[in-house]
Amino acid sequence: MARIAIDMDNVMADLTQHLLDVYAKEYGEVIDPERMNNVPEGSALPEGVAHYLLRQPGFFRNIPVMAGSQEVVKALTEKHEVFIVSAAMEFPLSLAEKLEWLNEHFPFISWRNIVFCGSKTIVEADYMIDDHDKNLASFKGTPLLFTAPHNLPLTAYQRVNNWEEVAAFFAVNNVEAV
Amino acid sequence: MARIAIDMDNVMADLTQHLLDVYAKEYGEVIDPERMNNVPEGSALPEGVAHYLLRQPGFFRNIPVMAGSQEVVKALTEKHEVFIVSAAMEFPLSLAEKLEWLNEHFPFISWRNIVFCGSKTIVEADYMIDDHDKNLASFKGTPLLFTAPHNLPLTAYQRVNNWEEVAAFFAVNNVEAV
Repeated sequence: MARIAIDMDNVMADLTQHLLDVYAKEYGEVIDPERMNNVPEGSALPEGVAHYLLRQPGFFRNIPVMAGSQEVVKALTEKHEVFIVSAAMEFPLSLAEKLEWLNEHFPFISWRNIVFCGSKTIVEADYMIDDHDKNLASFKGTPLLFTAPHNLPLTAYQRVNNWEEVAAFFAVNNVEAV
Repeated sequence: MARIAIDMDNVMADLTQHLLDVYAKEYGEVIDPERMNNVPEGSALPEGVAHYLLRQPGFFRNIPVMAGSQEVVKALTEKHEVFIVSAAMEFPLSLAEKLEWLNEHFPFISWRNIVFCGSKTIVEADYMIDDHDKNLASFKGTPLLFTAPHNLPLTAYQRVNNWEEVAAFFAVNNVEAV
């Protein structure tokens, strides 16, 4: 059994898509998703807009679930010790919303296995699945970079492009005991 | 510089006193604080009452600050990497309240250094200051048991009875680099 730390935004929750959807609805402008590629998160939107939208009540509560994440996370919890680790502290309103979101979409995750933090340097696990270099860089276990538009230029990590590849990684590497 | 994980309830926040105060106000009965000694947390109150009170809106927002904690935590942050680690996930309403409480009483703590979790087994640090055996038992660093009425029978840990003793521990042991 391995301990796996899994990020929420852009990993379990499709934050990028939600940002584009909410922007289109609020500002009446459709942004080509390709404009999100290879640039810092949110910077394809007019300056300050992503920052503003992320702080609106309900934003985090209504993010769509990332394709395939429910099935694969559930399968992982049956063989491993799974912790959901989200840098929620930067967005205080998101705390309750993220917990409600998890309870709705991932009801098989116990409150004991949820961590809302700021810096993830304090997290000890065997694997970390995350879309941000800043979270993976100091991690002492095996980092897995979950592909997101903003991290396409990164080459320093083993990459998983979707949840099928996460499932395959743990199956192919026969991760049982660590 | 050492990394120190500090618990909130009964360590930075005087939960025991607050429970007695709120109980006296709501139920009109003053409980002798000594009845809290040597029994599981909250069990000196009629059955289910502590559980009920801890789930009321505002409970965690209004807990008094533990004597001496502000000065000593501030001094520790100047020499060490301090993380506030609270098992807040058990009480969903407490998430926002605990963050507001920290921002009011410990404004020098960055959101980057706050962790709200369930199980603390995932926390990696050099020292953990906590009042619960369940949190200290699996900790790989040096555990420090902060004295609380419910933990008086415990003998397995180095004990700190108050924040003066926490300050003395780090001074006497000359904790600089780990």
